[in-house]
Amino acid sequence: MTVKTIEKDFLDFVQKMTAYNEALALIYWDLRTGAPKKGVDQRSVVIGQLSSEVFAMSVSGEMGYYIQALTEEDTWNYLSLTTQKLVEDCQKEYDRNKKIPAEEYKDYTMLTTKAESVWEEAKEKSDFAMFQPYLEKIVDYNRKFIEYWGYEGNKYNTLLDIYEPGMTVEILDSVFGKLRNEIVPMVKKIAESKHKPEVDFLFNHFPKEQQKDFSLKILEQLQYDFDAGRLDETVHPFEITINANDVRITTKYDENDFRTAVFGTIHECGHAIYEQNISKELMGTTLASGTSMGIHESQSLFFENFIGRSFSFWKSNYPELQKTAPEQFGNVKLEDYYRAINESKPSLIRIEADELTYPLHVMVRYEIEKALINNEIEVADLPKVWNEKYKEYLGIEPTNDGEGVLQDVHWAGGSFGYFPSYALGYMYAAQWKNAMLKDLPNYDELLAEGNVAPVKEWLSENIHQYGKLKKPLELLQDITGEGLNVDYLIRYLQEKYSDIYKLS
Amino acid sequence: MTVKTIEKDFLDFVQKMTAYNEALALIYWDLRTGAPKKGVDQRSVVIGQLSSEVFAMSVSGEMGYYIQALTEEDTWNYLSLTTQKLVEDCQKEYDRNKKIPAEEYKDYTMLTTKAESVWEEAKEKSDFAMFQPYLEKIVDYNRKFIEYWGYEGNKYNTLLDIYEPGMTVEILDSVFGKLRNEIVPMVKKIAESKHKPEVDFLFNHFPKEQQKDFSLKILEQLQYDFDAGRLDETVHPFEITINANDVRITTKYDENDFRTAVFGTIHECGHAIYEQNISKELMGTTLASGTSMGIHESQSLFFENFIGRSFSFWKSNYPELQKTAPEQFGNVKLEDYYRAINESKPSLIRIEADELTYPLHVMVRYEIEKALINNEIEVADLPKVWNEKYKEYLGIEPTNDGEGVLQDVHWAGGSFGYFPSYALGYMYAAQWKNAMLKDLPNYDELLAEGNVAPVKEWLSENIHQYGKLKKPLELLQDITGEGLNVDYLIRYLQEKYSDIYKLS
Repeated sequence: MTVKTIEKDFLDFVQKMTAYNEALALIYWDLRTGAPKKGVDQRSVVIGQLSSEVFAMSVSGEMGYYIQALTEEDTWNYLSLTTQKLVEDCQKEYDRNKKIPAEEYKDYTMLTTKAESVWEEAKEKSDFAMFQPYLEKIVDYNRKFIEYWGYEGNKYNTLLDIYEPGMTVEILDSVFGKLRNEIVPMVKKIAESKHKPEVDFLFNHFPKEQQKDFSLKILEQLQYDFDAGRLDETVHPFEITINANDVRITTKYDENDFRTAVFGTIHECGHAIYEQNISKELMGTTLASGTSMGIHESQSLFFENFIGRSFSFWKSNYPELQKTAPEQFGNVKLEDYYRAINESKPSLIRIEADELTYPLHVMVRYEIEKALINNEIEVADLPKVWNEKYKEYLGIEPTNDGEGVLQDVHWAGGSFGYFPSYALGYMYAAQWKNAMLKDLPNYDELLAEGNVAPVKEWLSENIHQYGKLKKPLELLQDITGEGLNVDYLIRYLQEKYSDIYKLS
Repeated sequence: MTVKTIEKDFLDFVQKMTAYNEALALIYWDLRTGAPKKGVDQRSVVIGQLSSEVFAMSVSGEMGYYIQALTEEDTWNYLSLTTQKLVEDCQKEYDRNKKIPAEEYKDYTMLTTKAESVWEEAKEKSDFAMFQPYLEKIVDYNRKFIEYWGYEGNKYNTLLDIYEPGMTVEILDSVFGKLRNEIVPMVKKIAESKHKPEVDFLFNHFPKEQQKDFSLKILEQLQYDFDAGRLDETVHPFEITINANDVRITTKYDENDFRTAVFGTIHECGHAIYEQNISKELMGTTLASGTSMGIHESQSLFFENFIGRSFSFWKSNYPELQKTAPEQFGNVKLEDYYRAINESKPSLIRIEADELTYPLHVMVRYEIEKALINNEIEVADLPKVWNEKYKEYLGIEPTNDGEGVLQDVHWAGGSFGYFPSYALGYMYAAQWKNAMLKDLPNYDELLAEGNVAPVKEWLSENIHQYGKLKKPLELLQDITGEGLNVDYLIRYLQEKYSDIYKLS
């Protein structure tokens, strides 16, 4: 067979996998946006069938054959760059999945499925003991998987690499340490500041329909393409890619706190715009996807914080908000509104945290995961360690495990190594902002005019279009000329909060 | 291998096929209820992948092995009745698909896909010549397929059998002839009647939101299970089964003709209730589905006509309708409303026809298809034959082919043999009604009380629960003790229209 024939067969094979993944994505979207409840059991059979099929394909003899045949030196050089990247991507998946004995992988999948429902109940009852045996098994499996997969330096690196290729404990320890040393004192200063924003008006009743109208206007301004997406309502908002021309988002309307919908929508919009603007040439391959969790989060956080919580953005949009809810905002000045939506104070729940304290929540989890994976602590220690770290970093302590160690679903699903992405995304976003200012020095004026298009174009050109063609650290290097650098985020936070709280 | 092992493997194999079909059904639903338009191209790749997979499985060596192994006499007798029926169902599909050379089947699929889009344009332009070459090829393929498949008696029987197992030209000629001989003179008498209903008030403006509220109430009364379904809005209303616990319907709101939504919803509800009440023991098999197009239509038409257009039903629901749209109905008496919604007059478009003239539209198509398949006419003759038959049966003639021979999509999709189901369903429905009256002599009182549950229970017990376990003529025999008998429909139409139009 010629190289071209093998390449074509390989691309067809990958397209079949992505077709199944597209069907699965639609099924997940449907399950969360209004699938009738009685149909869910049978639906899970369908999910099982399709995902086993995709998994089987990813480790199949056929896949092994393509990888082997296409990576031979004389073949490799004839491949397009895209095919080369695709082969690498498939090979990474193949190697990772192949190294785990099929039986163990199956047991682990069943364990995490069960653990997620146990976690849900345990969280509600604030009963860590109930969840503990499941979590212990999940941690044991992860420790074992790392042995199968191998590791360089710290064992936790292997898990980090799943979500953030190239990221290591060494890098994270350094940037997180630096960031913590800046944030912790700032949090204390803010607590002592006499210039706290007035926030009561934020919680006035704001009818859902009006919130929706306002959110749709914001989405248009932010360049979300409604011909390649749609907005629905769910309990837990999310973005989901059916294909690169069908990227859907959902939001949640809290009539007593409009921020949930507005900032949630902007956040998901950032994820969606990433996916909508991946080069269409990658469609039907596994490369038509965000390159890592951290880079993905850098897009949602860029939109949510660097655009959505900026003064300039509201300069353009506050009049419309006042028109939409005149009783709530009619008598509130833009400056006071801006300070209110940027209020910072230590809180217990990660997903409700403000910009400044958010990274601390992530660091608590990172340190716990790292210690667990390296056998430095055991699952039984978690509630104690958790509470101590919250006390140390945020100065507050949970009164029960439901609002403490049990608050996130990630560990129940076995997603160790995922949490750092949230903070990494934030640092990346600050680095993008800095690089962007060189090309768009009038950034603030653009936002103040409601002209987000050039900002989106910059992100699409530098980041979005590549999908998985570039790895996170490659993007960083190409765009900023340096590696991960937390200084930009630190400077941003210092400037922003010094202004809002008039810190000295 | 033991019988049990083979049976289990076979059931797993079938479950995988039905899982893929469930994913496909969801994809179709999504495409028609709001999928973003730019995503459609890539989505069609997914449809292609999944449907080829299902087709390949249905004719695979593995399927052939199961059929062969399970139908051996000493094996067969150990199978449950359900498995036996399932094997028969798969075998029918297997034999039918196997007999057509793969290459021809593929060409035919591509032809009909193309033909559907050509048809759409041809219909809009009223240009039969444009569509003619495609239709000629489709007819040729169907003639050839019949040679592959074989036939008993009339060649058209083979096509009928696809949609209505056991149905033949001999049976249809007899019942359609009888029905036509009754309807045609009635249509003439009605045209001459001096007691025509007043219908102007039907077309008052009725806001969509109120139509929706009213439709939802009706659906509840009709026992549609919202925990196993949902109502959405589409241009062309339909019912779609994702699985037997997730059966969705859609409707269309015309603010100048509320009948579109109300009677359309009731019609789709009839289809949906059939599927929702199939025995859950059949889930995950191809038997969890309506047994034929005709029986399916008997359920939608039972709901639409025998319930929804009955006087008793409106006795219970008209006050609510008056409350919902007081300006439109406040001054209209129930009797006048009932007569108005049952107005009958010849029209050109099948899907807009009333109860009485509807079967005539079906007969025109039936006779044309039968003649085409038996080489008695050619595609080029169609516009002429069509217009002549409309003149003969309905006394009116299309002024162009768009409202004539080009009005339905069925032929473009190659669905020859499908049309008779619409009229068969109507006859079956009248037979069910007659049988039901023996068990529920208080049928009219029940409807007048808004108590539809016993009616639905009767249908579920006698028809729905069996899915494809019983064939159409088997259901007829078991329920009515006789075969297809058009007399019940004739009597129903005579009584109803004599009353409304005061015919002598």
